[in-house]
Amino acid sequence: MKKIVLTGAAGALGTVLREPLSRSADELVSTDIAAQPESLLPNETWVQADLAKFDEIEPLMKGAEMVVHFGAVVDEKPFPELLGPNYVGAYNVWEAASQHGLRRVVYASSVHAVGLWENNADVDVTAHHRPDTFYGLAKCFAEDMGRMYWEKRGLEAVCLRIFSCTPEPQNARALGTWLSYGDLTQLVTRAVETPTTGFAVAFGVSNNDRSPIKDHGAHFLGYRPRDNAEDWAETLLAKAQPDPTDLAQMRLGGPFASVALGESGMAGIRALSGGDEEE
Amino acid sequence: MKKIVLTGAAGALGTVLREPLSRSADELVSTDIAAQPESLLPNETWVQADLAKFDEIEPLMKGAEMVVHFGAVVDEKPFPELLGPNYVGAYNVWEAASQHGLRRVVYASSVHAVGLWENNADVDVTAHHRPDTFYGLAKCFAEDMGRMYWEKRGLEAVCLRIFSCTPEPQNARALGTWLSYGDLTQLVTRAVETPTTGFAVAFGVSNNDRSPIKDHGAHFLGYRPRDNAEDWAETLLAKAQPDPTDLAQMRLGGPFASVALGESGMAGIRALSGGDEEE
Amino acid sequence: MKKIVLTGAAGALGTVLREPLSRSADELVSTDIAAQPESLLPNETWVQADLAKFDEIEPLMKGAEMVVHFGAVVDEKPFPELLGPNYVGAYNVWEAASQHGLRRVVYASSVHAVGLWENNADVDVTAHHRPDTFYGLAKCFAEDMGRMYWEKRGLEAVCLRIFSCTPEPQNARALGTWLSYGDLTQLVTRAVETPTTGFAVAFGVSNNDRSPIKDHGAHFLGYRPRDNAEDWAETLLAKAQPDPTDLAQMRLGGPFASVALGESGMAGIRALSGGDEEE
Amino acid sequence: MKKIVLTGAAGALGTVLREPLSRSADELVSTDIAAQPESLLPNETWVQADLAKFDEIEPLMKGAEMVVHFGAVVDEKPFPELLGPNYVGAYNVWEAASQHGLRRVVYASSVHAVGLWENNADVDVTAHHRPDTFYGLAKCFAEDMGRMYWEKRGLEAVCLRIFSCTPEPQNARALGTWLSYGDLTQLVTRAVETPTTGFAVAFGVSNNDRSPIKDHGAHFLGYRPRDNAEDWAETLLAKAQPDPTDLAQMRLGGPFASVALGESGMAGIRALSGGDEEE
Amino acid sequence: MKKIVLTGAAGALGTVLREPLSRSADELVSTDIAAQPESLLPNETWVQADLAKFDEIEPLMKGAEMVVHFGAVVDEKPFPELLGPNYVGAYNVWEAASQHGLRRVVYASSVHAVGLWENNADVDVTAHHRPDTFYGLAKCFAEDMGRMYWEKRGLEAVCLRIFSCTPEPQNARALGTWLSYGDLTQLVTRAVETPTTGFAVAFGVSNNDRSPIKDHGAHFLGYRPRDNAEDWAETLLAKAQPDPTDLAQMRLGGPFASVALGESGMAGIRALSGGDEEE
Amino acid sequence: MKKIVLTGAAGALGTVLREPLSRSADELVSTDIAAQPESLLPNETWVQADLAKFDEIEPLMKGAEMVVHFGAVVDEKPFPELLGPNYVGAYNVWEAASQHGLRRVVYASSVHAVGLWENNADVDVTAHHRPDTFYGLAKCFAEDMGRMYWEKRGLEAVCLRIFSCTPEPQNARALGTWLSYGDLTQLVTRAVETPTTGFAVAFGVSNNDRSPIKDHGAHFLGYRPRDNAEDWAETLLAKAQPDPTDLAQMRLGGPFASVALGESGMAGIRALSGGDEEE
Repeated sequence: MKKIVLTGAAGALGTVLREPLSRSADELVSTDIAAQPESLLPNETWVQADLAKFDEIEPLMKGAEMVVHFGAVVDEKPFPELLGPNYVGAYNVWEAASQHGLRRVVYASSVHAVGLWENNADVDVTAHHRPDTFYGLAKCFAEDMGRMYWEKRGLEAVCLRIFSCTPEPQNARALGTWLSYGDLTQLVTRAVETPTTGFAVAFGVSNNDRSPIKDHGAHFLGYRPRDNAEDWAETLLAKAQPDPTDLAQMRLGGPFASVALGESGMAGIRALSGGDEEE
Repeated sequence: MKKIVLTGAAGALGTVLREPLSRSADELVSTDIAAQPESLLPNETWVQADLAKFDEIEPLMKGAEMVVHFGAVVDEKPFPELLGPNYVGAYNVWEAASQHGLRRVVYASSVHAVGLWENNADVDVTAHHRPDTFYGLAKCFAEDMGRMYWEKRGLEAVCLRIFSCTPEPQNARALGTWLSYGDLTQLVTRAVETPTTGFAVAFGVSNNDRSPIKDHGAHFLGYRPRDNAEDWAETLLAKAQPDPTDLAQMRLGGPFASVALGESGMAGIRALSGGDEEE
Repeated sequence: MKKIVLTGAAGALGTVLREPLSRSADELVSTDIAAQPESLLPNETWVQADLAKFDEIEPLMKGAEMVVHFGAVVDEKPFPELLGPNYVGAYNVWEAASQHGLRRVVYASSVHAVGLWENNADVDVTAHHRPDTFYGLAKCFAEDMGRMYWEKRGLEAVCLRIFSCTPEPQNARALGTWLSYGDLTQLVTRAVETPTTGFAVAFGVSNNDRSPIKDHGAHFLGYRPRDNAEDWAETLLAKAQPDPTDLAQMRLGGPFASVALGESGMAGIRALSGGDEEE
Repeated sequence: MKKIVLTGAAGALGTVLREPLSRSADELVSTDIAAQPESLLPNETWVQADLAKFDEIEPLMKGAEMVVHFGAVVDEKPFPELLGPNYVGAYNVWEAASQHGLRRVVYASSVHAVGLWENNADVDVTAHHRPDTFYGLAKCFAEDMGRMYWEKRGLEAVCLRIFSCTPEPQNARALGTWLSYGDLTQLVTRAVETPTTGFAVAFGVSNNDRSPIKDHGAHFLGYRPRDNAEDWAETLLAKAQPDPTDLAQMRLGGPFASVALGESGMAGIRALSGGDEEE
Repeated sequence: MKKIVLTGAAGALGTVLREPLSRSADELVSTDIAAQPESLLPNETWVQADLAKFDEIEPLMKGAEMVVHFGAVVDEKPFPELLGPNYVGAYNVWEAASQHGLRRVVYASSVHAVGLWENNADVDVTAHHRPDTFYGLAKCFAEDMGRMYWEKRGLEAVCLRIFSCTPEPQNARALGTWLSYGDLTQLVTRAVETPTTGFAVAFGVSNNDRSPIKDHGAHFLGYRPRDNAEDWAETLLAKAQPDPTDLAQMRLGGPFASVALGESGMAGIRALSGGDEEE
Repeated sequence: MKKIVLTGAAGALGTVLREPLSRSADELVSTDIAAQPESLLPNETWVQADLAKFDEIEPLMKGAEMVVHFGAVVDEKPFPELLGPNYVGAYNVWEAASQHGLRRVVYASSVHAVGLWENNADVDVTAHHRPDTFYGLAKCFAEDMGRMYWEKRGLEAVCLRIFSCTPEPQNARALGTWLSYGDLTQLVTRAVETPTTGFAVAFGVSNNDRSPIKDHGAHFLGYRPRDNAEDWAETLLAKAQPDPTDLAQMRLGGPFASVALGESGMAGIRALSGGDEEE
């Protein structure tokens, strides 16, 4: 492949993906609203750009075959704060990709597009949207838009509903929802390398014993997660506070399911874990 | 009921609804981006306001119990032109309604939220979104948002997926998709008067012999359409140009299914019919 | 048909059914724990018997072809009070019917077997059990038992999930859930006269505009309800107290959905209506 | 429409359809293995031809827009006897239609394509095939072939699963399964006149109280049956012999469900009714 | 956890579970209608009690967090013999648990709640009840009751539909239905330790090649069976007597599917295996 | 088992199956339209016979318990060329098996019975037929016929929808669709040795990372594929030509999905691979 564009390249997950994506194409264009990091990969260029501005995003797509779209505000915020980066940003990426004839968008969707479904509802990728936050609603919007661009313009899209992506599982919920960096890399790589995909949705979750979904969907992509949060079970269960009335414990979206609309759903998690979590 | 707010009151359908809604409440506040019409109903007030501006919409909700949200650009346009009125406008209505403790939003959704489904797919209200245009995508966005406001904040919503609402059916497709003004009025009135609704979706289509859906959904609302486009069948079929390869003929969304994204889907219809159609 | 047995013959619905059932067979044996009423029909005999006692029920079945089983305590009570008449009583009827080679049990099941389903869940007869009370749980038990007797012993059963069966609709909920006496009679008569039925479940509800179910199921029985609660809409809606947080308003089971287990779910209804309601 | 071809024009149903189809096109070509009847309609020509012979069928299609394919042996027979007219005949019709660029095949499929489904299984047009005879298996074959010609070559097909089509209902089963000649005519006429259909399946049954299916499918065709076998209920039920262990009574296919493969399923019916029945 | 109550502690499976459950809580109260075994675990107390008597069961729950309810007559019997221990006993356990504020019931349900489903029906935990015996019907009753206690009173329940739980697989059927003691222990342990569960159903079957179900359900519990009956395949298949007309061979319930209601379904199995089997 | 008949014994897959099937029975009768190979297995006899001729096939079944029916033209051809071997041949096998009282037909069905389904449609064995060719249509015909023989005459059938069965995966599509010879052998052997099967359908595909189906169905057969095409991924992906508009790339049937009806679908594959592929 000649060229891949990666948005959100300075985020926790973007940082993980730069190296493997640089091996999938002759040229990797990394972009973020943040400034260029100290070192780049040999075939990588960095463009600081604001997703909310079409004029800054559009030129990046020239000559590319795919865009891996991971750029977004990664937390719940009031709708007006997410409108630019998460909603208009997604539109800008799809529209620019379409104008330049790209083949595919690989998109960081999120469990929060379906975060109000119950853990025991046996949800699969065909379950209807039940966003838990404005953050999740942006993922619903982009997924529906991606299906439309495929059906109307033939632009492929693979929407990866990422669960709890961190170096290690951070809490009892993550025993089910953890996505390891290794499995993330495999999932994105396969979404890129599969020759044709049409429009597809898949859950991004590791091979956890306690995964709340039985099947990640989109089998033809060939995703086979290898990691399992179970090694951390004893430690993390010891800290769990069972509460059957707490939405956060019985819904796929976890704390995003119980947080007030517009307020951060990561606060508690980050306080506990002290690290970066992306969902 | 004390007070109802009607948005889009100057549109073709808003104009139809003003009188019946004025009978459902002590006070009707009609709003539109257009100026006040010459005459108002006795208990009606008119406020010219831009849906895209929260500060203009928010004060209207004070003291209201329900908002009947029909305001929007009613045609396909480039996304940036729809972003304010159709996307942000819907957010403004729901957020303002929630802040003022309204009970319910009755929303003019559209068949175009599912417009790429085939006529013979036996679609019901549980079928997943397949928007045919940016116009339809805005309806998907608002429906998902409405479900979230219900689940997170207890604000009810009834989303009415209106098909082809005109005084008379305009073309062969409308033999199936017509919604008469009488049936529209019944549907909106019942959506308003039903004591509790939670979140619900229903198709707004008359009792047409050739309706592409077998069931309008949300039976507890008590919608029983009475009109049937069949009286116009002979005339309208005579003009039909069968073309099995034309998406416009085999998809629920009709011409919106085949039009290019961002280009008007009403052009052809209006040329043929010379009238107002709202979907 | 030679002989039909009717249990619960002294109840409100049993009283309605005696006359039409007496016309469907040469002999009608009516039974109840209550004493014989003043007058009987020409081909009717009355046997006072306790459903909870197999020895009292078993002999009634001799020579019968069908039993129409409407006998039960018709309200929520603590489980031990329902165990005899509603649980063991149902077993006694099926087992006695089977021992005497009857062809069919026509059973007064109830909406309360599925009473915790939401009004807008588009429930049909294939939805799983969600009993709202010990009263409803007894209906679940009998339905599962009826299926088993059919599959293991070839005893047919038609389980009629009766909604709100009263002379007139009593409250706003009944605008959707009313079953008129005329439609009850039609439903039971057709369940009796259909030549073969196997095991079947059907909803007993009139042709109400606001019915919370779109389809009563078991079409081969030929049930076509004729009455519609809509004539009472204006009066009854005027009394409605909308409350979206009240389970009684948004679940099929109405007040049984929100009442405490073991406490009467009819109290409020009867206070309002002053009459007999059976569900 | 310029030209319609009708196969099986000398059969009971073909005879009913000649007149209405002659009004739908400038030219009607009627064909059958039987000789020309005494009188033809003004715009009708008759060609005696063997469906099993491609060379006899192919030329008839020249210049036609649609073929209404009702020709077949209408009873169960050993497979080798049905192979020519019912299997190869269907292939010949579709292939010839495709070669001559026809728009659509309207096909007399049959309930016997799904005849082993139970009356109380709530079957709709999406239920999988369960043929009851070699006769029904031919209908499965043609339906699957029709879908393929649509998907691969764009030749439309409307497959009408005809139930018990006779002047009057003949027996207790027909209280549910009757299709009146009037409703047949409506169904075929609408299948012909609908501008575009793609591939569709619909049940051909009248508006009977006791219909074993709740919905005839393919609503966009606009089929609204008007007749109801219920007027014959008292007479026909009086003759019914209930037998819950007889497949003929509890399966959609009736006597075809219980007859041995290869043996006539119409024998008993015709003995009872003395008339023509087509399914 | 402070305290767990185990019913049926003297049964074959109860005996297996005592040790692992004693490690999950500070205190294990074991109860059975049988007398105390010779030796107890350090933190275990034994109470001889009759499940059918509320007064004997109720006091055991005081101060407990969970009850693992495995007590029952484990075979098919006439209904009156199962009524006390299996039906009333289940009610007593749930009601007592609810009165004392326990968090959860972990219940030994059984494949026999769905035992009349065919092996090739691809059954999952959402399939409706099809009990094969009065024994299985008691499991249906308790599952429906458990769902109701969760929905009405917030008492969690995990219903484990145990298949053929023995030290080794006993016959050809068990190549699919075996549940090893190790996997039983894992399943119960995870049902206990999962912080919140709501109401859930899962199949208790090992990781057998020939399992008649593809998925055990309730993934968030984290059950990952490790054993596989395939090691016994050659030996056990050699003894198999294929008979496609025998319900015992093609239904999930095996011999319980073909046994007469009220007669022992274990007789044949025990004669073959000479051991304890619990289902 | 006393005797097994294998049809298509000289084909690529028949050749693979002769040895394992010879171990499953005292006597193996291998038949093909081709002449006997040079060497036979000790308990094998060879009969040259034409599947299209009942008189040649019928005598082979005498005394057999099962027939493994793999004989057919293995490519797309005009319908008249497939009619004898693939359609009538299948009838001859089932009818002859039924007349001689065989227990079971194990049938080489094909992915091409459902070849027009999309890769990302999450197809399972309950998806309706969507044949891609006359070759696939013959498989639909035989599957429907097999179900009917089971339901009407009690002749069991296991229909194995074989994907791409070759010694090694031949192209990028086969990374998902490959069926190794080892897994084929396991699948057929288990279909033969399972004591009772009724009518069942299963997908024949190896344990490939990129399998377009998530589940092969018919779990009670105990099929556990062991091979995985992923070892060939790097080599085969390098040759892939992504084209989202090419049906061959996004449908289960691959090149059969895009080939013209009646024209060979194997041509391209064989040109690339130079080997035998059977689907």
